[in-house]
Amino acid sequence: MYTDEFSDTIIALSTSQGVGAIGVIRLSGSKSVEIVNSLFSGKNLAKQASHTIHLGKFVYHDQVLDEVLVSLFIAPSSYTKENVVEISCHGSPFIQQKILEALIDSGARAAKAGEFTMRAFLNGRFDLSQAEAVADLIASDSEASHKSALQQMKGGFSLEIKKLREDLIHFASLVELELDFAEEDVEFADRSKLKTLIDEIVMVMEKLIHSFKLGNVIKNGVNVVIAGKPNAGKSTLLNALLNEERAIVSEIPGTTRDTIEETLNINGILFRFIDTAGIRESVDVIESLGIEKTMQKIETASVVLYIFDVTTTTAEDLRMESETLSKNIPLLLIGNKSDKASLTELENKFYGFENMIFISAKQLTNVDQIKDKLSDIVLDKSVNVESNIVTNIRHYEALNACRGALQNVLSALDSKTTTDFLAQDIRYALNALGEITGDITTDDLLDNIFSKFCIGK
Amino acid sequence: MYTDEFSDTIIALSTSQGVGAIGVIRLSGSKSVEIVNSLFSGKNLAKQASHTIHLGKFVYHDQVLDEVLVSLFIAPSSYTKENVVEISCHGSPFIQQKILEALIDSGARAAKAGEFTMRAFLNGRFDLSQAEAVADLIASDSEASHKSALQQMKGGFSLEIKKLREDLIHFASLVELELDFAEEDVEFADRSKLKTLIDEIVMVMEKLIHSFKLGNVIKNGVNVVIAGKPNAGKSTLLNALLNEERAIVSEIPGTTRDTIEETLNINGILFRFIDTAGIRESVDVIESLGIEKTMQKIETASVVLYIFDVTTTTAEDLRMESETLSKNIPLLLIGNKSDKASLTELENKFYGFENMIFISAKQLTNVDQIKDKLSDIVLDKSVNVESNIVTNIRHYEALNACRGALQNVLSALDSKTTTDFLAQDIRYALNALGEITGDITTDDLLDNIFSKFCIGK
Repeated sequence: MYTDEFSDTIIALSTSQGVGAIGVIRLSGSKSVEIVNSLFSGKNLAKQASHTIHLGKFVYHDQVLDEVLVSLFIAPSSYTKENVVEISCHGSPFIQQKILEALIDSGARAAKAGEFTMRAFLNGRFDLSQAEAVADLIASDSEASHKSALQQMKGGFSLEIKKLREDLIHFASLVELELDFAEEDVEFADRSKLKTLIDEIVMVMEKLIHSFKLGNVIKNGVNVVIAGKPNAGKSTLLNALLNEERAIVSEIPGTTRDTIEETLNINGILFRFIDTAGIRESVDVIESLGIEKTMQKIETASVVLYIFDVTTTTAEDLRMESETLSKNIPLLLIGNKSDKASLTELENKFYGFENMIFISAKQLTNVDQIKDKLSDIVLDKSVNVESNIVTNIRHYEALNACRGALQNVLSALDSKTTTDFLAQDIRYALNALGEITGDITTDDLLDNIFSKFCIGK
Repeated sequence: MYTDEFSDTIIALSTSQGVGAIGVIRLSGSKSVEIVNSLFSGKNLAKQASHTIHLGKFVYHDQVLDEVLVSLFIAPSSYTKENVVEISCHGSPFIQQKILEALIDSGARAAKAGEFTMRAFLNGRFDLSQAEAVADLIASDSEASHKSALQQMKGGFSLEIKKLREDLIHFASLVELELDFAEEDVEFADRSKLKTLIDEIVMVMEKLIHSFKLGNVIKNGVNVVIAGKPNAGKSTLLNALLNEERAIVSEIPGTTRDTIEETLNINGILFRFIDTAGIRESVDVIESLGIEKTMQKIETASVVLYIFDVTTTTAEDLRMESETLSKNIPLLLIGNKSDKASLTELENKFYGFENMIFISAKQLTNVDQIKDKLSDIVLDKSVNVESNIVTNIRHYEALNACRGALQNVLSALDSKTTTDFLAQDIRYALNALGEITGDITTDDLLDNIFSKFCIGK
């Protein structure tokens, strides 16, 4: 279904910025072969077959810029279903810039972020949620996020939604037909069959909406804020947590300058441990209900690990401190230095607290229990990681909108309201479903989605 | 001249690290097609022609890791003259890592820095100085460095050297022959022709050695340290210098944390202006002959710009200050605020100083003169930028060694010393020449050269 809709030929550096052995510049559009051919000294590219590679010199204004390999993908056998040319050049940012400039001078236009994938979508290569999965795949940084992006690229839940949407369209058209014959008071759409279908769709929606909690965790990772008084053993705990898997530990500069994040992969999910220096340095802050900044950090957390020294903390202290910390965020209490007392003693002392683990960070006792507990808190056991999971907040919102509209349809059916209201609610639901798969799009929506891609994809 | 010398198949990420639309993983070696084929779900790669591209899934342990494009280059039609396979995958570091791991598990070995180019050299694709030019090309960041790297890749002066070396080998063999007949006191090698040849080689050596001053500047850019007392107009000057070409100005974090470099391209050469905060903040430092740190910075400079306020500085001050600053490094004196006095006045006041320019940084008067002067100081007008230029310090040293040996040959010829000394000096010279082109190499030399490449090239 190759279309000639886009008259211009777009171009971008498709590999990441920076010095490397090679860099790849990609063109897409009806003139891409012609444009590259005009700057290529070697075989006549216009006469070569699709999926072939050609060595030659890239020459601009009689000056050789580089020796390059040119790969040809002739429409529709390409990513965008247009003519695509990839130029593999030496990985010097200077050379890449020169080649890009020469190609733009010769008629190509610098691509916007995601524009290649947008063309692929508009030319029918895949639906919108599959296109979005391409960006997720590129951004994937853990086993689970990688798997869910691939699943979504294969079609994922959008196939299921497409099917349900078609069934609903069938009923919608019957309901709309009733509107045309409003004065005759006929019912073309079988109300009980419609109700059954909508019940089914709502059930699917709810399953998918429910999966978003996990999907979000898979896609974005889990922020774990570690809090605690000085000398509670916070750094020792962090080291203990990271120690075993040192190989996959990395230091990522935080979004703010004063925090360092340490990441740890637990069961395929990325956990980011955020060391709130603010809390550490100002003991009194926590006790006096905290400073705004500290609390802000905690509010971005999915889980708070609160570590305390079992030998110096009373149950009353802990109750006060933990009440201050936890609002809606799961709190895991870590009683450190548990080697200095018996377990029975500790259990008596801190009787009645939930989510508490006694450890010895120094002796590495029970540290694995923390990992298991973190997994438990985050992973929804009722959702199978292998199944279709919603990871995209746009889909989540559309699913919620659809469920809301369908629930209105259901109450309209129950209360036997007029057909126009029923028809309108069905239209809302169809719209929300169509937005997920891209059957219904607006320019704004597309711009918004593809602007989040990287340039060159 | 494809050799089967390397039994193992090497692999590396060839594009730069980081997130991009795509990443390219490259394999080279006799088993590269076989290894990729075992993980590729699509056409049978073993049966495909060279220079063709194939879409398929990369599957490892029954799990799809990515949808990839595989490009085949069958020996000897490849960069290394071995079988080369390039896998174009999504630009996620996570996916790239997974694919690399799968390929290494399947029999490939992680390539060392420059190992692909080293194989290309060892398989006779190009000589050593051409191989080195590949690294220079990737690192090129200005018009001039790009041009000289391309020139060297095409063969550059190594062709000239090869030719002279062959002529010299001819004489060397005759001289060696004389050694075998030493007792008969014959002369197979015509001494006057030998002298003519050596004169010619020395002339070429000197031209090339001479070009290194420019070559080094082209390759590495020029460090310009700007010094001056506070309020001399240093920042205004820097802004004035950068202003006109704001587009190609960039901020590069310095090697040390407390300096910022601003780069400016003047006539195709990269100038790095280094703002020595140390000098600026501590006025007394310069007056009291400077702190070690400040002087260290100045010692790395190719040129020092010393800016002073013509209204407050006496000729005596300036003489003292400039003597402190300049040791062996060209010093350019910039008399700022020249709009506050007549040129005649100033010329009288500062009579006898060399390399002095009067400017008004604020009014942008004479700022271009500084650029021209910088160009003059750095560019050797006697060397044509378009000609063969030595940019590599290794070549420079080999050329110097060769010239030294040849001068010994000349004095041996003049003083009619014994043939063994003559033969030995010729051997030294041949050795030095051979090291440039790679006709004579040692493992250490090769390791040293290629370890400076990036991984994947």
